Amino acid sequence: MSEKILLITYDNCDDSEVMYPYFRMLEAGYEVDVASLEKRTINAKYHYKIEAGLLPDEIRPELYAGLILPGGTAPEKLRQNADILNAVRYFMDNDLPVASICHGQQILISSGRISGRHATCYPGIRDDLVNAGALYENAPVVVDRKLVTSRRPEDLPYFMREFIKLL
Amino acid sequence: MSEKILLITYDNCDDSEVMYPYFRMLEAGYEVDVASLEKRTINAKYHYKIEAGLLPDEIRPELYAGLILPGGTAPEKLRQNADILNAVRYFMDNDLPVASICHGQQILISSGRISGRHATCYPGIRDDLVNAGALYENAPVVVDRKLVTSRRPEDLPYFMREFIKLL
Repeated sequence: MSEKILLITYDNCDDSEVMYPYFRMLEAGYEVDVASLEKRTINAKYHYKIEAGLLPDEIRPELYAGLILPGGTAPEKLRQNADILNAVRYFMDNDLPVASICHGQQILISSGRISGRHATCYPGIRDDLVNAGALYENAPVVVDRKLVTSRRPEDLPYFMREFIKLL
Repeated sequence: MSEKILLITYDNCDDSEVMYPYFRMLEAGYEVDVASLEKRTINAKYHYKIEAGLLPDEIRPELYAGLILPGGTAPEKLRQNADILNAVRYFMDNDLPVASICHGQQILISSGRISGRHATCYPGIRDDLVNAGALYENAPVVVDRKLVTSRRPEDLPYFMREFIKLL
């Protein structure tokens, strides 16, 4: 059986930030489970669609080799869900590979697990990342132990290259 | 200097069929040159944009390690350009890696180089591929020597996995 990756997203996620990591994990031979606030087809901002098969309270984080948090406006909804935050804490507390891009870092902020960690994010939420205690860097990709962060869709090639190295 | 890949596309290309291969080649450390019918920003069907830096008569196919032909309605325009077809013939005649997906195979048909080759394509142009002499197969990816073909966006993970093996 192939290893599994968890991807957490919702409506109005960024198309490429969901599609590229999702296809990339399949290309690398992983299964990908998509968790969301509702168990249905999730509509990205522009066109891309992806099927969510898990509700927040159905996530068993111990089943996964790594976690992907795409951006868009989805993270503003997801960060308000206690089960989502608990799942994210499991990955962070066990130093498992976590890849978060753009606004995905809003979920990391709300998880209370970004303080003292080197990270980057979309420029519009940089001050929030800093206020949460992160050591902000403006770079296409920042790796701090098993945590990989990037700024925006254009960083995706470097984001996934580093995440795959950690798996 | 890193090796270079040529990607040929135009307006109304399929977003993911341009974006995934483009980012994937960057992730793998290649430079990607984009050729099109006009030297400007190319607008994919839904949202994605990519900068085309080469006109058809500026393509020097001998500079590239491989060729990518995404789908959408772009190939119907591109297949009418003699310089595009000559560039494609160079890759096919020299048995260089060529990856063509969905409607990209319309360019291969017009190049006159698909006869006798195992290939797949978007179902809507299957009869055209067969009439051009190709040995059609309905599979996510078909590899015939250095020619890699796929059917649709959902095949992208398997399409790029095989193309990268050939580079």
